[in-house]
Amino acid sequence: MRIAILGTGVVGKALGQAFITLGHEVKMGSRDAKNEKALAWAKEMGPRASAGTFADAAAFGEIVLLATLGAANESALTSAGAANLRGKILIDTTNPLDTTGGGPPKLAVAGNDSGGERVQRLMPEALVVKAFNTVGAPHMFRPDFAGGPPDMFICGNDPGARKKVASLLADFGWGVVDVGGIESSRYLEPMCIAWVLAGIHGGNWNQAFKLLRK
Amino acid sequence: MRIAILGTGVVGKALGQAFITLGHEVKMGSRDAKNEKALAWAKEMGPRASAGTFADAAAFGEIVLLATLGAANESALTSAGAANLRGKILIDTTNPLDTTGGGPPKLAVAGNDSGGERVQRLMPEALVVKAFNTVGAPHMFRPDFAGGPPDMFICGNDPGARKKVASLLADFGWGVVDVGGIESSRYLEPMCIAWVLAGIHGGNWNQAFKLLRK
Repeated sequence: MRIAILGTGVVGKALGQAFITLGHEVKMGSRDAKNEKALAWAKEMGPRASAGTFADAAAFGEIVLLATLGAANESALTSAGAANLRGKILIDTTNPLDTTGGGPPKLAVAGNDSGGERVQRLMPEALVVKAFNTVGAPHMFRPDFAGGPPDMFICGNDPGARKKVASLLADFGWGVVDVGGIESSRYLEPMCIAWVLAGIHGGNWNQAFKLLRK
Repeated sequence: MRIAILGTGVVGKALGQAFITLGHEVKMGSRDAKNEKALAWAKEMGPRASAGTFADAAAFGEIVLLATLGAANESALTSAGAANLRGKILIDTTNPLDTTGGGPPKLAVAGNDSGGERVQRLMPEALVVKAFNTVGAPHMFRPDFAGGPPDMFICGNDPGARKKVASLLADFGWGVVDVGGIESSRYLEPMCIAWVLAGIHGGNWNQAFKLLRK
């Protein structure tokens, strides 16, 4: 499949490499078609990787992953273009982090709204699915934990899109916990902060959620 | 130890029975000293169980568990009395659920506040620790899951109180994930809703969080 990654940070690179490893084609999008990080990444990843603008990537991808900093979501998506995202699965991996306080991050959007809902409102014709927001980049692909696989919590309004993302997550080595519509981002984004606080207080970032079931 | 349980619902009964099983003395508190549910429970549980008003229970307990409906927290705590809670560990098991919408519950308090913080503000001299709010009553004691034990996420401002609650949780059969001060209730209460939504969408309520670590 053709995969677009919007964003050139550690999450974008980790997910891009994962899709390349699984045999997909990946275009990494950024503000500038000549973004050095994106070009260097594509060169390193080989012939199935490429780089371009947000719009180039979104046009290319059959599935698009939003992996910008949460605060940059709106401008990245606007640059990507609604027409390039229409009818496509848009995986929102971001969290609306407020890191201005000096202490641990808080949520800049919470309560009766969420980052995931904002993405969906901004791109109403995209099939937004929240995923990859409750674990750190090093463990997004083939997570290796005793007692695993861990579970990725996902939500999104389109059941078919959730099912497709669940299938991709299985390819990545994850179990999946489906918590319904995109409004449930209100509960998954706080789980990111719980994960961060557990890392801070436990002194260990090699951690991932699982929902034990019987 | 002497344990107070404020509340006569399924959570109060489950936790009360757990403490009795572990050899503690438990007084179940409710609005009315002659509450039939509390008296019947105490009779069933035997000589180490008793019942009384919220104030009776709070005065009795060395550790107090708040197990009312979230909406009743304020009146129950006010009835229990600040003097009876002063300097004591107050385990807040509740969630500020809004069930008025007809669909799945939402949070009545969220964003820049939380139920746990409200409890702490209401009883500033109590050592409030949030716990037991991310799992259902049937699995609070000796949770039995393949791949277990599951982890209870806890928070509270007093490190010593968190440590004591972690020790109690170990007696109950739980691992513990400490996420810091009571403000972190902002992230643990949404996890309750994620748990509920996972139950709804997965059709299975026999589920408990674990944080896989390596």
